[in-house]
Amino acid sequence: MQVLVSEVGPRDGLQSIKRAMPTAIKHQWIRALAAAGLQEIEVASFVSPKLLPQMADAKEVVQEALKIPGLTVLALVPNLRGFQDAVAAGARKVTLTVSASEAHSMSNIRMTCAEAIESAKRIVAFRDGLPEGERPHIEVGISTAFGCSIQGDVDEDFAIGMAVQLARAGADTVGLSDSVGYGNPAQIKRMFTRLNRELGDKAGGAHLHNTRGQGLANVVAALDAGVRTFDASQGGIGGCPYAPGATGNIVTEDLVFLLESMGFDTGIDMAKLIEARRFLAEGLPGEPVYGHVPDAGLPKNFVRATEQAHA
Amino acid sequence: MQVLVSEVGPRDGLQSIKRAMPTAIKHQWIRALAAAGLQEIEVASFVSPKLLPQMADAKEVVQEALKIPGLTVLALVPNLRGFQDAVAAGARKVTLTVSASEAHSMSNIRMTCAEAIESAKRIVAFRDGLPEGERPHIEVGISTAFGCSIQGDVDEDFAIGMAVQLARAGADTVGLSDSVGYGNPAQIKRMFTRLNRELGDKAGGAHLHNTRGQGLANVVAALDAGVRTFDASQGGIGGCPYAPGATGNIVTEDLVFLLESMGFDTGIDMAKLIEARRFLAEGLPGEPVYGHVPDAGLPKNFVRATEQAHA
Repeated sequence: MQVLVSEVGPRDGLQSIKRAMPTAIKHQWIRALAAAGLQEIEVASFVSPKLLPQMADAKEVVQEALKIPGLTVLALVPNLRGFQDAVAAGARKVTLTVSASEAHSMSNIRMTCAEAIESAKRIVAFRDGLPEGERPHIEVGISTAFGCSIQGDVDEDFAIGMAVQLARAGADTVGLSDSVGYGNPAQIKRMFTRLNRELGDKAGGAHLHNTRGQGLANVVAALDAGVRTFDASQGGIGGCPYAPGATGNIVTEDLVFLLESMGFDTGIDMAKLIEARRFLAEGLPGEPVYGHVPDAGLPKNFVRATEQAHA
Repeated sequence: MQVLVSEVGPRDGLQSIKRAMPTAIKHQWIRALAAAGLQEIEVASFVSPKLLPQMADAKEVVQEALKIPGLTVLALVPNLRGFQDAVAAGARKVTLTVSASEAHSMSNIRMTCAEAIESAKRIVAFRDGLPEGERPHIEVGISTAFGCSIQGDVDEDFAIGMAVQLARAGADTVGLSDSVGYGNPAQIKRMFTRLNRELGDKAGGAHLHNTRGQGLANVVAALDAGVRTFDASQGGIGGCPYAPGATGNIVTEDLVFLLESMGFDTGIDMAKLIEARRFLAEGLPGEPVYGHVPDAGLPKNFVRATEQAHA
């Protein structure tokens, strides 16, 4: 059984750190991650460089990453303008973020939830007007799907309803995101079960944070609900700059260990993955980097999923 | 649905730290933990004070803890001698540790696995010879049940077979322990499902470590297998002094948050629990203390299990 680990460190991770990683080191880091076996990497965000100067080199980073054979290069866009810039850079797959919390939606993308859905429709229409062969795959991530650090509760029916509307509007996949670390395994399982039932093959992956230490616990619940795509960031860097206290994506290294130990094939080489951490140290000296497996090492009896007898 | 969180910080935590916490602060800490709602606390280990001077005050700590109304006071014993000391101190419930790894068993308790089972039988016989009303409840924890940092693989049939033999020998409950952080959720679920099937109401709880960041992920799997008792230590202190690199019990604070969020009633007040951390700082200044929830705070919409609509 294969599971896709989608690395978001170069985007979600770097955009939450004030300093910018030098572009040349971004290139090296992304190459090292791909060489470790990561098949999809979110490399940049097409937002205003005034808002996020760390992402000012988005076009260059995307173009360089597109040269890596076999890699799915993902770019985040907040709106149509960002989508157009991503297309101009050559992106073939984009992530659009919307929020199921009105309060978070306003502070994050300055749109109501309804306006964000309309914006998604305009993006889909623009995409569909492009020449065949130049139409990027559009993945939507619904953030604060499990609660919001500004407004508190988020109605589950509302979040699932947004997912349905976005899928109908032409998004290729719609996933659920917990960038504030509010989700618990019971809720994660319930929500992804609903998402899969409502969206079928348009049901997207899980973007989970480890803010309250529940990241991998939530992964187990999502696996149980049938989720087979997970975002994670190397060293656990990243958070949401508009959600107070929301730091820490789940750590790619610890996630890959979890999945491979359980017999899920990620295609990732743990040693090479851990080795790629050096670009974080080089590009952002002194920045905190997390992860238990890099510290403790692999168990003596670790066997990759593809080599397990019962695989 | 109720889940028992058994706090092992004062034993497992403190015995892995070289410095000793002053006895008076141990008393205060244990009282604060009980006041936060913890119903069971492993307060001491009856081992040679030459081996573990941190536990030299075991008798006094047990006797003081026994004065706390409603608290189940647990004492760890490695052998008959330790059991006799625990009984002399007034302990009404003991944990006996054995190991499913021959290599770990030898280095931890200097017995083969078969010898450890014989030792358990002698302890049960001694217990059964005590006057009625003075016979402690005997809980056995099988460590390295999911792999061993010395020998690597541990045969699952062997570990379950040991559990069956120990239950037949008169242990009241037999649980499984992963003090080296080798377990993965698939294995945890498989093993506890077998344990429950084989032992019925003698199946004990899960003692899981967070060495490789998988602690709470493994809790979710164990919950799924029907486990309703979990060991944890405040601040995640503790490890196994004989298992290299094996640091870190699962953090009580993060575990309680997980369980309560999922609707499992632990009876624990998070605010009071977090407040009890101050005795770690007082008793062991400068010692690293872990936990995501104490850092990030509770979500805005956190509701205890007993107050949840669907509880």
